[in-house]
Amino acid sequence: MKFTLECSLIFSKPLKDVDIDSLLQGSSDVLQRGAPKGQGARIQKLQLKDDRLELTITSGRYVRPHDALFRLKNLLASELGKKYHIGIRDTEAKSYLIEFELECEPKKDLEIIYAKKIDFKGKNCILLLEDLDEGFLKKNCVDRMISLIKEKIQKQYYEGKEEYWELIWSSIEKKHVWSKNPTEVMEERGWIMHRGRGQWIFGPIATRIIKTMEQIVVDELLKPLSVDEVIIPKAVTWDVWKKSGHAKNLYGEIYYLCPPKSRDPKQWEDVVDIYKITGEVPTKLIKEKIKDPIGGMSYAQCPPFWPYVAGKTLSDEAMPLKVFDRSGTSMRYESGGIHGIERVDEFHRIEFVWIGYPDQVKKLHKEIIKHYKHIFNEILDLEWRMAFVTPWFMAQEGLLDLADEKKEIGTIDFEAYLPYRGTRKDSEWLEFQNASNNGDKYPKGFNVKAKGSNELYSGCTGIGLERWLSVFIAQKGIDPENWPKEFRERIGTVPNEIRFL
Amino acid sequence: MKFTLECSLIFSKPLKDVDIDSLLQGSSDVLQRGAPKGQGARIQKLQLKDDRLELTITSGRYVRPHDALFRLKNLLASELGKKYHIGIRDTEAKSYLIEFELECEPKKDLEIIYAKKIDFKGKNCILLLEDLDEGFLKKNCVDRMISLIKEKIQKQYYEGKEEYWELIWSSIEKKHVWSKNPTEVMEERGWIMHRGRGQWIFGPIATRIIKTMEQIVVDELLKPLSVDEVIIPKAVTWDVWKKSGHAKNLYGEIYYLCPPKSRDPKQWEDVVDIYKITGEVPTKLIKEKIKDPIGGMSYAQCPPFWPYVAGKTLSDEAMPLKVFDRSGTSMRYESGGIHGIERVDEFHRIEFVWIGYPDQVKKLHKEIIKHYKHIFNEILDLEWRMAFVTPWFMAQEGLLDLADEKKEIGTIDFEAYLPYRGTRKDSEWLEFQNASNNGDKYPKGFNVKAKGSNELYSGCTGIGLERWLSVFIAQKGIDPENWPKEFRERIGTVPNEIRFL
Repeated sequence: MKFTLECSLIFSKPLKDVDIDSLLQGSSDVLQRGAPKGQGARIQKLQLKDDRLELTITSGRYVRPHDALFRLKNLLASELGKKYHIGIRDTEAKSYLIEFELECEPKKDLEIIYAKKIDFKGKNCILLLEDLDEGFLKKNCVDRMISLIKEKIQKQYYEGKEEYWELIWSSIEKKHVWSKNPTEVMEERGWIMHRGRGQWIFGPIATRIIKTMEQIVVDELLKPLSVDEVIIPKAVTWDVWKKSGHAKNLYGEIYYLCPPKSRDPKQWEDVVDIYKITGEVPTKLIKEKIKDPIGGMSYAQCPPFWPYVAGKTLSDEAMPLKVFDRSGTSMRYESGGIHGIERVDEFHRIEFVWIGYPDQVKKLHKEIIKHYKHIFNEILDLEWRMAFVTPWFMAQEGLLDLADEKKEIGTIDFEAYLPYRGTRKDSEWLEFQNASNNGDKYPKGFNVKAKGSNELYSGCTGIGLERWLSVFIAQKGIDPENWPKEFRERIGTVPNEIRFL
Repeated sequence: MKFTLECSLIFSKPLKDVDIDSLLQGSSDVLQRGAPKGQGARIQKLQLKDDRLELTITSGRYVRPHDALFRLKNLLASELGKKYHIGIRDTEAKSYLIEFELECEPKKDLEIIYAKKIDFKGKNCILLLEDLDEGFLKKNCVDRMISLIKEKIQKQYYEGKEEYWELIWSSIEKKHVWSKNPTEVMEERGWIMHRGRGQWIFGPIATRIIKTMEQIVVDELLKPLSVDEVIIPKAVTWDVWKKSGHAKNLYGEIYYLCPPKSRDPKQWEDVVDIYKITGEVPTKLIKEKIKDPIGGMSYAQCPPFWPYVAGKTLSDEAMPLKVFDRSGTSMRYESGGIHGIERVDEFHRIEFVWIGYPDQVKKLHKEIIKHYKHIFNEILDLEWRMAFVTPWFMAQEGLLDLADEKKEIGTIDFEAYLPYRGTRKDSEWLEFQNASNNGDKYPKGFNVKAKGSNELYSGCTGIGLERWLSVFIAQKGIDPENWPKEFRERIGTVPNEIRFL
């Protein structure tokens, strides 16, 4: 690694009659601090011009030149203040040249924001930055750029690779009552009605089925495992997504939330008048009158729960902490096209989150799967299977060790066969829920601690009710006569359809 | 009323050798059509210049000049096409002078979008518009501007007037167990946790209370009245708010929803890189990469149900149609400051909507109030009252006749006394829910019909669960020992608080 920084310290007035050399006497000690002997940063060039001290600072692995710059600034500031009543107004960097080694050769060229130039020679990367401000230098953005370049090159090696998928259990093949598309049939009958992009109204019959499924989850999974209900916000602010890791990706799938810049009706009078006169809502003008997004609608459902425990230490009696939420909708900007209620932009999910010591989390994960098996085999009588998959965030952040034979950390996808799609090829199965052991990701991200320095793990499982409905109707049809006895007993009398003339 | 329009028809090429006078021979008949004899529009001036026919058209109450213009256009178009192979490319209006009478004199000057000039002389208004395009003329925006000016002047007379409020029922004064602020106490105990602006996480105990209240509403109101559950979308698109009337106001209170312009991760790479390098989410850049708002988060909860019945004819057996929704959060950008869970930006409400013949709707409204009385008196044992109020939309749209002695159309607010606020002054009561008979507003807006030409009414009641919780804890405290027996039996064993070290 080699760093060369050309930078300046800017003073509150010209440094006349100031003996800069004597002021910088202690600088070589300062630039050496914390590094092995002789491996600290060095001042290669130094020139005083009126109110500016121009410096060229170099270093290897230890003491980055930008850190060195701030050490020099501190050293000078106190002396200048005391002796000459001069302050240091600003720091600037004209150029920053960084050479470092990569783990693997890039497969193709790379662009990265803030870089004036980026060149590769074999495994060597030469990065040039220009015109950097104090904030950029101070926040150590330079090291994060180096990490990001390394990450991008690693990704080049994974590009186009599918998600890791391994079958771990499968029910027997079953005979299904029909092979119709559940969305189409329910839509024809008026059980559901398509609205905006990936959005549906569920009428009384479809809702009754969904609510019966919800009750099954409560009675057969959540109550037996003593899971407490909580209400998790559905508007998710950036602070949450920074800690959950979602701020590192997913921007293309978020429905963003923007509050108005002002509540004052006077500020909205033009919008109102335009609408009243033209009959059209002036959405472009509205966009000018709303704030930058404060975040977006719930995506993964459990992250906005974590502030409730963030920064706290869980007592042993509280663990494993088990809570669930079913208080509202999540939204995803899904790919377009016709997917019916199998892939929707606005959906309803019961989310169950648990936090505990690693063995508690593993144990609970297994118990949860046992309860699901009972529900899908005995109550819903589905043809379904489980697969171990690499979750998006672990794949993207390199957190998952696929060599781990036990597959203890990771996600299990639950898939069901959709008869209308064909003959049991992989694409004819629908992932209708999952259950994850997320390891220490969330407790670390939100700084949740246990007694002593014991490690905490967490897990979550999201029950997608629209997908349960799809799968059930796809395999069991719409005639209650053909539904499994256990389900029929729970749903009771199905409500009437709304009659139109 | 007096209209003077200076406008042009623009042809696809210059009109050489065209006998324009003979082509316009039938024009006076055309401009007279539909008006009392001699009161149609008139051409005052007419001049052909190359590819333009410049016209000055005037009228009184009948046949607006812009309508006259399009009649002339049609008349000419067919003749010019047939005989000369010339088309009419465009229409333009250089100026439009409109004089009309107001119902009352303006109290102060008025500005209005699209107007070049607006002058008042007593009850007379002189409005000048310039440079109008074909769309503006065709969509009859001019008449809507006239209505809007009249509306704005009427509003000057109501400015600063309070909402109409009339007490219609009150429980006896009760003795309350304490006079503490429920939000503060619950927050101290960790029952609830404040998050973003007006947003809270509800822990296990607070959630259990809310869910018990929800079950009371189901058991004591919705089941006895045979109300079917439905699932109403929570992302509301403009088409809904246009028909429900919300597009006429409320812009200052909406949380707007903006989807990304693209799902492609390549398009978001700069945002991701900036975040990874600086640790800050670049919200300004994100705003550039999202679409104009498609609408916003649920505000009034019932409007997005209406597309399910829009344009349809309800059968007599289907009526009164009764549905309810509790599938997610609504959001309002509320005024800032400290209001605890009494005024929140993100909230949970059970919404019950009914549609039927006017007498069915009135009857149901009364039954609903009977059930509420039972809940608040016998189960929750609250000190509460009911008031007849003018709902915002009726006040703003002048739909409510306050002289109507029977007060059949309108809203009943349910208010409860908050002991911690003081001694029963009006400001010490909290509106915790309401019930409205909305008359024909929604069936008309969404074009829902009944057999024959019978009129339809609708009503709705929204049960705000955060407010129920506030009111209950404010009067009954947090110790279950002090809660009414009927409520204690329903809630069963209260869950443990989450224990932190």
